[in-house]
Amino acid sequence: MKKRLFTPGPTPIPESVMLAMAQPILHHRNKDFEEIFREVNLGLQYVYQTSRPVLTFASSGTGAMEAAFVSCLSKGDTVINIEGGKFGERWTKILQAYGINVDLIKVEWGKSATADDVKIRLKSNPKIKAVVMTHSETSTGALTDVKEISKIVRENSDALIMVDGVTSVGAMELKFDEWGLDTVATGSQKGLMLPPGLGFCAVSARAMKASETSDLPKFYFDFKRAEKELGAFTTPFTPAISLITGLRESLRLIREEGIENVWKRHSHMAESCRLAVKALGLEVFAEKPANSVTAVKVPPSLDADMVFKAMKSKYGMTLASGQDHLKGKIFRISHLGHYDIFDMVTVMAGIENTLHDLKFKFEPGSGLQAIQQYILSTSN
Amino acid sequence: MKKRLFTPGPTPIPESVMLAMAQPILHHRNKDFEEIFREVNLGLQYVYQTSRPVLTFASSGTGAMEAAFVSCLSKGDTVINIEGGKFGERWTKILQAYGINVDLIKVEWGKSATADDVKIRLKSNPKIKAVVMTHSETSTGALTDVKEISKIVRENSDALIMVDGVTSVGAMELKFDEWGLDTVATGSQKGLMLPPGLGFCAVSARAMKASETSDLPKFYFDFKRAEKELGAFTTPFTPAISLITGLRESLRLIREEGIENVWKRHSHMAESCRLAVKALGLEVFAEKPANSVTAVKVPPSLDADMVFKAMKSKYGMTLASGQDHLKGKIFRISHLGHYDIFDMVTVMAGIENTLHDLKFKFEPGSGLQAIQQYILSTSN
Repeated sequence: MKKRLFTPGPTPIPESVMLAMAQPILHHRNKDFEEIFREVNLGLQYVYQTSRPVLTFASSGTGAMEAAFVSCLSKGDTVINIEGGKFGERWTKILQAYGINVDLIKVEWGKSATADDVKIRLKSNPKIKAVVMTHSETSTGALTDVKEISKIVRENSDALIMVDGVTSVGAMELKFDEWGLDTVATGSQKGLMLPPGLGFCAVSARAMKASETSDLPKFYFDFKRAEKELGAFTTPFTPAISLITGLRESLRLIREEGIENVWKRHSHMAESCRLAVKALGLEVFAEKPANSVTAVKVPPSLDADMVFKAMKSKYGMTLASGQDHLKGKIFRISHLGHYDIFDMVTVMAGIENTLHDLKFKFEPGSGLQAIQQYILSTSN
Repeated sequence: MKKRLFTPGPTPIPESVMLAMAQPILHHRNKDFEEIFREVNLGLQYVYQTSRPVLTFASSGTGAMEAAFVSCLSKGDTVINIEGGKFGERWTKILQAYGINVDLIKVEWGKSATADDVKIRLKSNPKIKAVVMTHSETSTGALTDVKEISKIVRENSDALIMVDGVTSVGAMELKFDEWGLDTVATGSQKGLMLPPGLGFCAVSARAMKASETSDLPKFYFDFKRAEKELGAFTTPFTPAISLITGLRESLRLIREEGIENVWKRHSHMAESCRLAVKALGLEVFAEKPANSVTAVKVPPSLDADMVFKAMKSKYGMTLASGQDHLKGKIFRISHLGHYDIFDMVTVMAGIENTLHDLKFKFEPGSGLQAIQQYILSTSN
């Protein structure tokens, strides 16, 4: 049975990236690595649309988020965190672990905060040091409008804008410089189409300035140390060399396609997925869905975990299941990274088969037809 | 753009096979290789459903066919060749190059000879030394009923039954021993899911006996030499080592799936493809189609080569085009080897997009829906 991965991290790895990583390993304290890392950094800046440094850690995306917090914040600071899912919750936990006061904007899972919600909160507490938000909440498929909210923050406050871009960087429009963001973190196993093991964080001048006065304990995740070494095209500690070699190739693929086209491709895949879901009589869980992952709400007669299990065991397709209180109520389809519209046709064929096996009533082929009609209606 | 190969050779290579071939190369005159080759030979016998030797050559499938001819035939012999396409023609050319008289059963491209056609011809010439036939004529997608024809040959003659199994072995039902076949050749880049470079030929006791008196000039392609070395689990000349290492893995995959299931999978893929083609208002070219490749006849208003070109350049999917007088009139979809039913959905989505681009009138999504309805109607 062929295996196909439709999870929002790890995501499928292009063959040319796998081959790049299979090359003999080289030592990281020499010219060869320096050249690779120089190219990688230019590529990361392109993906983030920034002229600022993008720091690379041997860590997961969570590590990169923690790096941003410990590097830019200080004891007793108060930050707003927009929390609407599993990952929003995680940022609250990290912040609290370091003694930061979290002023929560809690939204129901699947919903999104508005710029107005943030504006009101900022006005009620002018000492807010940072606004933390999750661009794409992977657990619910919900989008936070980073562009709009950042605009409001910039107009009303000096707060740092700290973004979890884990499932948005390299998938959805994100313009670090133009939007005035301060830190945006991601991980390698997402839009960057690599195995897990690298965490990244773009850092604004304002964020670097904050790092100079930050008094939180840190060593490995210290922006100042990382930024200093980046000037010499290296890292403070041993980098994950083969992943960085693979990253050079995946960044080349992104550059070749063009970042705007990458965003557009994700938007098309996501929309086709949503249309198919509706055609089958299911629901898109998120009110304002992100383009990297579609969470599908099933009716009470269906167990979403059964869909997940049958897809994997009978059709070799791995979806993501629901987490916490969404367990059994949603399943999630990834269209993040190395996918195209034809992969959406494939996953939907698998879902139709699975729904049929589970005796769910729907018009066979209607999901596929919805995608095909959408593709043709948008083709030039 | 993702690239997807839908050609009837080379065919896609499973990842585990690629990884097996990427292992450090070993020397072929030692125990390690002997063990691999021993396992490979058992696997080949399983695929061919035979207890007879299956000889391996570093060659293409054409080489294996030539090996059968030069090893089993003698100057001045007369053989029947059922010729209904590009490959049937090739066997005529090889036979004539060695001074063999060819008694042609010529069938229109896309049609298939019947057992009666062969019976009549055998009766009219009792000195026929062999009957040559192409199980799956790749150029037209037409099937020759090897089982029925072999039965007729066995009942009416002592002629050797020499089969081109290039696009049938490992894809369509073929039982070397039970059907009483004498030679069946194939190549590695087809149902065996490898890169090109290996040719195989199963050889009956009767064929080996014929090789003892054969007077055609030969050295590299000599069955006697190859069979002798096979007893020691090696080959007379340097084998294509990495391909054989990969073959061990692909044969393991076939064994794991079960050969009957492999045949069934191909039958399902082919049928789904044919149904989709008809739903789109196109025609299956072959009267009795094989399960490894579907040749699609387009109406005069369409240029099949344009379909081929647009699929490749715009959607990254490589089909096969028509050959000789079928150029521009047909295109061919492979479902031979490492494919599953979801790949058929994918290729059909590509074809629908292409037909739309070429302003061909059809109901968008109807091809996909035909496949999905067929899948669901046949699922348990």
